[in-house]
Amino acid sequence: MAQRRFLDRLLRRGLRRKPGRVALDLAPSLPERDVARIREVVTDVLRLHDTMTQRAEAAAVADAYVTLSDTGRRNFIDMLAREFWTDPGAVDEAVRELRLGDDRRSAERQLRNALTPPAASLLRLFTGLEGGVKFLVDLRADVLRLGEGDDALVDLDRELKAHIATLFDVGLLTLRQITWDAPAALLEKLIAYEAVHAIGSWEDLKNRLDSDRRCYAFFHPAMPNEPLVFVEVALTSGIATSLPPLLDARAPDLDADHAETAVFYSISNCQPGLAGVNLGTALIKQVVEALRHDLPRLHRFVTLSPIPGFRAWLERELGEPGRALTEQERELLPAEPRRVLARLGDVEWESDEAIRPALLALCARYLTTAHEGRVLDPVANFHLANGAAVERVNWMADPSAVGRSRAFGLMANYLYEDDRIAERAEAYAARGEVPASSAVRDLIAG
Amino acid sequence: MAQRRFLDRLLRRGLRRKPGRVALDLAPSLPERDVARIREVVTDVLRLHDTMTQRAEAAAVADAYVTLSDTGRRNFIDMLAREFWTDPGAVDEAVRELRLGDDRRSAERQLRNALTPPAASLLRLFTGLEGGVKFLVDLRADVLRLGEGDDALVDLDRELKAHIATLFDVGLLTLRQITWDAPAALLEKLIAYEAVHAIGSWEDLKNRLDSDRRCYAFFHPAMPNEPLVFVEVALTSGIATSLPPLLDARAPDLDADHAETAVFYSISNCQPGLAGVNLGTALIKQVVEALRHDLPRLHRFVTLSPIPGFRAWLERELGEPGRALTEQERELLPAEPRRVLARLGDVEWESDEAIRPALLALCARYLTTAHEGRVLDPVANFHLANGAAVERVNWMADPSAVGRSRAFGLMANYLYEDDRIAERAEAYAARGEVPASSAVRDLIAG
Amino acid sequence: MAQRRFLDRLLRRGLRRKPGRVALDLAPSLPERDVARIREVVTDVLRLHDTMTQRAEAAAVADAYVTLSDTGRRNFIDMLAREFWTDPGAVDEAVRELRLGDDRRSAERQLRNALTPPAASLLRLFTGLEGGVKFLVDLRADVLRLGEGDDALVDLDRELKAHIATLFDVGLLTLRQITWDAPAALLEKLIAYEAVHAIGSWEDLKNRLDSDRRCYAFFHPAMPNEPLVFVEVALTSGIATSLPPLLDARAPDLDADHAETAVFYSISNCQPGLAGVNLGTALIKQVVEALRHDLPRLHRFVTLSPIPGFRAWLERELGEPGRALTEQERELLPAEPRRVLARLGDVEWESDEAIRPALLALCARYLTTAHEGRVLDPVANFHLANGAAVERVNWMADPSAVGRSRAFGLMANYLYEDDRIAERAEAYAARGEVPASSAVRDLIAG
Amino acid sequence: MAQRRFLDRLLRRGLRRKPGRVALDLAPSLPERDVARIREVVTDVLRLHDTMTQRAEAAAVADAYVTLSDTGRRNFIDMLAREFWTDPGAVDEAVRELRLGDDRRSAERQLRNALTPPAASLLRLFTGLEGGVKFLVDLRADVLRLGEGDDALVDLDRELKAHIATLFDVGLLTLRQITWDAPAALLEKLIAYEAVHAIGSWEDLKNRLDSDRRCYAFFHPAMPNEPLVFVEVALTSGIATSLPPLLDARAPDLDADHAETAVFYSISNCQPGLAGVNLGTALIKQVVEALRHDLPRLHRFVTLSPIPGFRAWLERELGEPGRALTEQERELLPAEPRRVLARLGDVEWESDEAIRPALLALCARYLTTAHEGRVLDPVANFHLANGAAVERVNWMADPSAVGRSRAFGLMANYLYEDDRIAERAEAYAARGEVPASSAVRDLIAG
Repeated sequence: MAQRRFLDRLLRRGLRRKPGRVALDLAPSLPERDVARIREVVTDVLRLHDTMTQRAEAAAVADAYVTLSDTGRRNFIDMLAREFWTDPGAVDEAVRELRLGDDRRSAERQLRNALTPPAASLLRLFTGLEGGVKFLVDLRADVLRLGEGDDALVDLDRELKAHIATLFDVGLLTLRQITWDAPAALLEKLIAYEAVHAIGSWEDLKNRLDSDRRCYAFFHPAMPNEPLVFVEVALTSGIATSLPPLLDARAPDLDADHAETAVFYSISNCQPGLAGVNLGTALIKQVVEALRHDLPRLHRFVTLSPIPGFRAWLERELGEPGRALTEQERELLPAEPRRVLARLGDVEWESDEAIRPALLALCARYLTTAHEGRVLDPVANFHLANGAAVERVNWMADPSAVGRSRAFGLMANYLYEDDRIAERAEAYAARGEVPASSAVRDLIAG
Repeated sequence: MAQRRFLDRLLRRGLRRKPGRVALDLAPSLPERDVARIREVVTDVLRLHDTMTQRAEAAAVADAYVTLSDTGRRNFIDMLAREFWTDPGAVDEAVRELRLGDDRRSAERQLRNALTPPAASLLRLFTGLEGGVKFLVDLRADVLRLGEGDDALVDLDRELKAHIATLFDVGLLTLRQITWDAPAALLEKLIAYEAVHAIGSWEDLKNRLDSDRRCYAFFHPAMPNEPLVFVEVALTSGIATSLPPLLDARAPDLDADHAETAVFYSISNCQPGLAGVNLGTALIKQVVEALRHDLPRLHRFVTLSPIPGFRAWLERELGEPGRALTEQERELLPAEPRRVLARLGDVEWESDEAIRPALLALCARYLTTAHEGRVLDPVANFHLANGAAVERVNWMADPSAVGRSRAFGLMANYLYEDDRIAERAEAYAARGEVPASSAVRDLIAG
Repeated sequence: MAQRRFLDRLLRRGLRRKPGRVALDLAPSLPERDVARIREVVTDVLRLHDTMTQRAEAAAVADAYVTLSDTGRRNFIDMLAREFWTDPGAVDEAVRELRLGDDRRSAERQLRNALTPPAASLLRLFTGLEGGVKFLVDLRADVLRLGEGDDALVDLDRELKAHIATLFDVGLLTLRQITWDAPAALLEKLIAYEAVHAIGSWEDLKNRLDSDRRCYAFFHPAMPNEPLVFVEVALTSGIATSLPPLLDARAPDLDADHAETAVFYSISNCQPGLAGVNLGTALIKQVVEALRHDLPRLHRFVTLSPIPGFRAWLERELGEPGRALTEQERELLPAEPRRVLARLGDVEWESDEAIRPALLALCARYLTTAHEGRVLDPVANFHLANGAAVERVNWMADPSAVGRSRAFGLMANYLYEDDRIAERAEAYAARGEVPASSAVRDLIAG
Repeated sequence: MAQRRFLDRLLRRGLRRKPGRVALDLAPSLPERDVARIREVVTDVLRLHDTMTQRAEAAAVADAYVTLSDTGRRNFIDMLAREFWTDPGAVDEAVRELRLGDDRRSAERQLRNALTPPAASLLRLFTGLEGGVKFLVDLRADVLRLGEGDDALVDLDRELKAHIATLFDVGLLTLRQITWDAPAALLEKLIAYEAVHAIGSWEDLKNRLDSDRRCYAFFHPAMPNEPLVFVEVALTSGIATSLPPLLDARAPDLDADHAETAVFYSISNCQPGLAGVNLGTALIKQVVEALRHDLPRLHRFVTLSPIPGFRAWLERELGEPGRALTEQERELLPAEPRRVLARLGDVEWESDEAIRPALLALCARYLTTAHEGRVLDPVANFHLANGAAVERVNWMADPSAVGRSRAFGLMANYLYEDDRIAERAEAYAARGEVPASSAVRDLIAG
């Protein structure tokens, strides 16, 4: 009862909301039956005219949402996806009009309107609220997290994603360099979001922002202190082929003005709600331009990248004779597939000298073989789609436990060559062509 | 021939474009037949994958567009609206699928896709280009200017407007106060854009930014130096009922800390391409909040507004007996309608004492009478929709030639009362109710 | 020999100096005989005209100085203080001119010039170098550290201090609030400089910058990233009488808007070279103004301060019968002075119930008794000179080892009352009057 | 009587002063006898301890000063220079101590203190007030303006200048580029301060900030919106030898990236109170560095400068046979000196073909002949002292009325050659050596 009154007050006070505060102030366990109350309000919002009252009500819905438990949120999302979706009767009526064929353009317009769900209007309304853009991104993160596997939510996600993709068009984003002079409140987020090679401490972070390092991130004007995606770059005098020296805080700094290679060694997405909205491509492009401008001596842009899918793929390939390796591939193995698989399970597999050439060759194939126009490894696919080439496959480049579990410690370098990027990206997109250095081609050839 | 080669070069060099520079560098008279070349490129762009190549081609199209003459632009716009619109065959096919009814959700999705014209995809592509957001706004300004009266362009405008409305959602805009400390390059634009009461010189502008004045504008992050809409406010100790004292540079300044009234005396839209995208409402709301925060003594928020439609309306009413005035209204006149009309045509009408009460009363009616839920005067409609009330009608408030030609020199005050705004806006939107002060109601009563 | 050439090169390359880089590049052990080389250069610099050459030579001297070991620096400082001091012959000659009495004003001017040492001109020259202001501050820190107890260096320090005091006049400083949004490179310095209550970690620092905390620092425009002095403030709903709750990261935050008391619990000087240049007074004044402006509900400004001299003073008083306590004071003791002293040496003295009232009373006396116009405790003297009153003496307010060794865990509150500050400061400065609350006066009375 | 009370109130309310507001609020005609009241307050201020009370009183004096008429200000300045100067008795006493010779260092210190006038302490106190730095600069402007020719004020000016020179050491100043994006409030000041070639309008100013122009100014942190000195630069493809093309708004812009010459065509001091504090030298040095960094193609730095003393010098030389020209110089003349003088008085002298080579040759001599180590022309002396060489003398380079009255329309180019600046500046300072191009040497040779 108290809860009900509390929710009512909440729903009424919308306009005075301080974004980001509510969630802290309120208990997260609001009874789910209160979702019914929210349903009424949503219905109401969509009936209102475009006035401050409508905005206030929309704000109240958003405020109420962030106080909900996961169960409550899931109920709300389901409600949007099912109860505030298209009206089949209205669609059919519009189809009938179209077939009558009097005024084709006008009929198409009506039909498209009928096909646009009321939920889409609500999502649009959220945009203009204080903190509304972040709310939408977080809402989508919830949809992806809670609605996984539910076909009925696919359409809602599609709607959200389309709207968010417009709001996060690269034309609206700002690239900012992040240094040790950045706000601590921002740096703290890098520590939290780093996805590829965890940042252990403030000291570790300071090392990654040293004079021979660069860090850049994209920001959205409506979320000024939230990095969207960031990249960490090391300035070196040659292609880095192994991770530990890059992460070693005691390594001496190179004078950035003398570096001729930029190594992109970590790219991290910070907002789960932006999944599938490709920001990395534009980030790499703009960072290359910024580096080239600041450090005219730089002439080589390369990544040192994990190969997240290799170990799982190889173990599957070795274990399932049905999905068997090609003849050629099998010849690369030092023994029968199942025996190799067994040997790789051994902690001491590294010391087995025969295994190294086999792993390198198989990995080179894994990275360069396209299936239905794209390679299997998601990181490789990302860089190839951006117009890079597979430059090297490196043995024991990431000897950490994570590195071994992902790819037996292997990492790859992808090379971005300015004058070939556009053409390579198009060739990969159109025909699945994977460019590789002669070293990598040699590996494949065995 | 040279032109053709020039255009080809232009279309190829897209990526190196410096926005805002091209138009100056190039002759604006490109032969219109080159539009055919652009058609090929647009077709090409839409066939390409989402790569840098695609962006470069889109940039080339935008570059080429800004070099076109009005005829060339009109051709381009027509081309988009007719040749890159929906494919009836595909729509009908999708309708058929829907009627088969296997997977309703999926079928609706397909149908909606088929109803989305390829032109929409091109517009989206422009967004992410350097200067792309401004390009879209200017493109829409061209569509409105060149395509007026052409029904076929209505759909293209609708598409553009929807996309622009998302990009210019108030949640993405920034309110900035503009003072005499603002960049000259920005102030120069205020002088150019002021639509209501022209700014004659830098001195005049400085006066409007004095210590007892305030000026605020909305900005978009992708157009950081372009005001979108701005409002000029005078801080006074009572409701200003006449314009000349407000614009008089020699009038002594009031100490802003002692003011208790804020008079909004000019709101100007700066971007023709944002027509119909309502920014004024949010502007007023946020400016009221900002003023209230800075100057806690302020307790009255009122406008001094032109009445742009009054003279035209009255002359029509007086001249056309068929659209005759009500009995009541006719009684307000000092003579027969046609004689009054004749007298108002006389330069000396002002000195006719009988005319003043009649004009005031008729104007009060004009401002407060809703037809099909809204009043006729666009400025009155704007403020009423925002939740204001008609507070006063002022005699000879704008004695300038423009003021006389718009409304016989009359101006109106609209009053924003914080605790009644929401309710009034809703009552006007839902039922066309027009709130007015007792003084205005007295005028109407005669 | 190599060293000599190295120094020569160094002295020649002055202009290309990157401040802050040299010290890292060079070995700190330059042979002290090279000071002779510096002597020549200094003589040269002072003979040169005011041209870029002179500035370059001065820069070379500064560059060379920062590479010196402590012994080398001490030699350089001695050289300045003895060899580049006033010329007695010239002074005596000017005195003779003055006594001739022809043109009194002109003669006084000449005499004053003769009394201004050449070293002063060199110090002035350093000011304009890149990083020169920081160099002067660091040079003075060296003079104070290395020259302690050397009467001959007192004059040099006086000269340096006068020049630095002009450069750091409060009219040239900027007050900045420091939040968790400040650059990490700056926050790192707070951790290093905090003198009163050590900041243990980034988490600890974040807690001290929470929503119910404030931190402010003074900055100098020529040292933009170097805090000069900073103060930490807690916003509370009553006078804080004990330190641990203030430093507890897990304590719930108070809503700053509801706080009515600001507790200044730490003031730290960051630059040893600014010793004796009083910045704290202006800092407190400006911070009070800033807080009052931001949080109009605040109406009490109080410190929670250490009493650094109490324990040493009391032990001396108890131990030396000659410097004996007054009769009155002795009566406050629970036993003979020497026995009390012995008991206080015991680790368990806290549990002795008789000791508490005695310590509180003696401390109240210690804080409020002026000798030759000022109280003995430096912190008390600072706040009294600023116009504060002694408000409370708190038992076990700082139970840390440091707190016990300084003042048996006691701390004091000083109260700043806006309308009495000026009058109290003047009364203390002129007549050594110490204002105290009735609670403190009761303590004294026993 | 009312005045008296008003002044008293003013003197009391010091601390609440808003700098820059007082002068506007108050009548500027305070009776001069009130200066007596100020005398009491000054005496009081100097007797007070360094507390807020002292600062408040000093602020009250400054507040009162700005309300005074010129007569009142002159009285105040006289009072400082005569009544708050050194105490002869105290000086003589200190001299006696020095001659006793007990503790030489201490005695010298005492003597120097006695020679420091109380007025100096007051000036120092002003520094820390809000707006105090600007107050000191304006006070010195008054001293220079009102005290001209009064020997008694020379010492006060010397004191003020020394203090101001420390406060405005180049190490404390900031160089800022000024563009059309600068605040209008700042640009307005450029229009007001431009001393060399008047800026006629905002349009004219915009032209001088075009893409092929640069403008830089020095700022002081305590006067953030007040330019101290600024320089206007044109980017050209050759040495500009004439002013009109530089000032022509309709001239086409050069692409700055292609310019190889920077022409410094105007340097203006903005603060009369900084007279004699050399900021121009550092300005030129830093601007050259900034330009070199931004536009790597620039390789020639040259001025186009007025020759303000030439016409007056020549007319004196021609008119006074006693101060006669050298034999050589007389040979350059086309006729007898007095006849040449008469001819130059004629409006049509320009059309006299014989006069051109004579004027150019005499001007070249005027610019390059040092008397007692410096050339006569102040602008030439400034650039030579900075290390420039005389590069060209240009005929009819400034055909305006001002240009003719200053130097018969002649202007000079001074060339700054990076690798010779230091050596040339020293040679000029030490030995009066004037470097000149071969073209100028040819002119001299006739």
